[in-house]
Amino acid sequence: MNSVHLENGRVSIRQRPRPRRRAGSALIRLLCGGICNTDLELQRGYYGFRGTPGHEFVGEVVEADTASLVGRRVVGEINISCGVCAWCRRGLGRHCPEREVLGIVRRPGAFSEYFVLPERNLHAIPASVPTESAVFTEPLAAACEILEQVSLPRGAQVAILGDGKLGLLVAQVLQLSGKEAHLFGRHMQKLAIADAVGVKVRSGRRSLPARAFDWVVEATGSPEGLRQAVSMVRPRGTVVIKSTVHGLVSMDAAHIVVDEITIIGSRCGRFEPALRLLRGGRLNLAAMITARLPLTEAPQAFDLAAARRSLKVLLV
Amino acid sequence: MNSVHLENGRVSIRQRPRPRRRAGSALIRLLCGGICNTDLELQRGYYGFRGTPGHEFVGEVVEADTASLVGRRVVGEINISCGVCAWCRRGLGRHCPEREVLGIVRRPGAFSEYFVLPERNLHAIPASVPTESAVFTEPLAAACEILEQVSLPRGAQVAILGDGKLGLLVAQVLQLSGKEAHLFGRHMQKLAIADAVGVKVRSGRRSLPARAFDWVVEATGSPEGLRQAVSMVRPRGTVVIKSTVHGLVSMDAAHIVVDEITIIGSRCGRFEPALRLLRGGRLNLAAMITARLPLTEAPQAFDLAAARRSLKVLLV
Repeated sequence: MNSVHLENGRVSIRQRPRPRRRAGSALIRLLCGGICNTDLELQRGYYGFRGTPGHEFVGEVVEADTASLVGRRVVGEINISCGVCAWCRRGLGRHCPEREVLGIVRRPGAFSEYFVLPERNLHAIPASVPTESAVFTEPLAAACEILEQVSLPRGAQVAILGDGKLGLLVAQVLQLSGKEAHLFGRHMQKLAIADAVGVKVRSGRRSLPARAFDWVVEATGSPEGLRQAVSMVRPRGTVVIKSTVHGLVSMDAAHIVVDEITIIGSRCGRFEPALRLLRGGRLNLAAMITARLPLTEAPQAFDLAAARRSLKVLLV
Repeated sequence: MNSVHLENGRVSIRQRPRPRRRAGSALIRLLCGGICNTDLELQRGYYGFRGTPGHEFVGEVVEADTASLVGRRVVGEINISCGVCAWCRRGLGRHCPEREVLGIVRRPGAFSEYFVLPERNLHAIPASVPTESAVFTEPLAAACEILEQVSLPRGAQVAILGDGKLGLLVAQVLQLSGKEAHLFGRHMQKLAIADAVGVKVRSGRRSLPARAFDWVVEATGSPEGLRQAVSMVRPRGTVVIKSTVHGLVSMDAAHIVVDEITIIGSRCGRFEPALRLLRGGRLNLAAMITARLPLTEAPQAFDLAAARRSLKVLLV
């Protein structure tokens, strides 16, 4: 079968044997994969990753212990946890110290004709949700995670910094969850996507308002963005860091102390709230798809995904 | 009257006219002042401060609108706020953007024979609390602030990093508030002070336990301490930054995101909880007093306070 291979920054296609599933796991055929910024970071060498990337996917179950799963379209939670530790028992397998992460940590990813995942990671996709929407489930879940970590009152004004894929999803999730999302970005075309669902958008980074919001979500992926997010928050306010910025980021600690600012790191989320939003059908996702390429053109797809004007590039 | 003067890193004594109080303010005679690390930072040039420092004090009210205040021993909240803005209306005058801060921001401090403060900033000291305990009210309030910002269950294991004045107070406050405080420091003599009230203490910085606590309070005053505090916290845990570290501090943002860590800046607190603790009489404060010097020996007192082995130096 065809499988994407990532090594030393190079993306290639390799022929590999179809994987075998163990008891409790499902064999899944890839229907659609989404290239995420994390995939591009793996390509740049973070985590010393070598192997098959891919963690945003829609697949069809080919084999499973649970007969009713076979033939179903599914999405899957990407953390494969031990299931028995204190974290797993608290429902926080996403933090299990023994976890593997699909296509990221010690586990071949989904950019392959076939791959395996534990059945308990899978969620069947409602019939009303198209595959090209469902492929956003994982990053949408990451956006929804904010709502589980921070208590935001109805109508709360929240600034989101960065109009990339994650920023656009966060802004839409917050807006459609009854908050007032304000998205700050640099690309009118990208901002227009959020504008279409009622998000207030603003272009240009020079005139970011200082100390203007009680909640700011950082989704720029840049150290500079993180500093800007901190400067935009009011005293006693909260900054949610959504993008993984690698290396050391310098921050003004005295400002954080004097203004008693809270900074919260936020990563993956549960899939249920994301699937609920998808079922609602109000998200503007179609406009976020820059291109669809076949799996065998993954090298070109990765190049395209890394281009500045691109948003989501799908492998189909 | 004698007044301490701070300018270009030099501490001196100047003769100044006794200040006049306005309506709503009290004229206070200094009984006892405490030198805080912030005073030493002002000396090092932070905030471009020039004038009379001092914000930890016990005084006697000499003149006031409220007759019952005259003759009383008082402590005073150090933020002088406008009283009418949205922050002040929420009871958070400590964040009023128009605030002056006694001996720190645009306001002569308490290291003077006489000084003035608004009456509403003052708290009468219960008769059972000695002056040399009451002088710790302000930093104790700052330690108590943690309990208002973070919801700590009874018996919560909290690590405190740094055995300076603030770390010792935080550890004692947490221990006496029903938490299990673990103080990490470098000086056996200082750690012994917290040990005496039941705090678990540990000396040496090399073997700090990684990812071992759900709550870590950083009170080292060093950028290195802040990084160490972050490394000691478990996934989903909380780091409270208690010490103002000046300049830019570099942090591993990816770690904060992947482990979904919360970082909370924490500054001044309300005086009421601190006064309640002082009334209880269980804090070990006497052992924290390194020396008592007359106000006119402030230059020597500042030098002594800056010495590595020193804890609280009082001006009496």
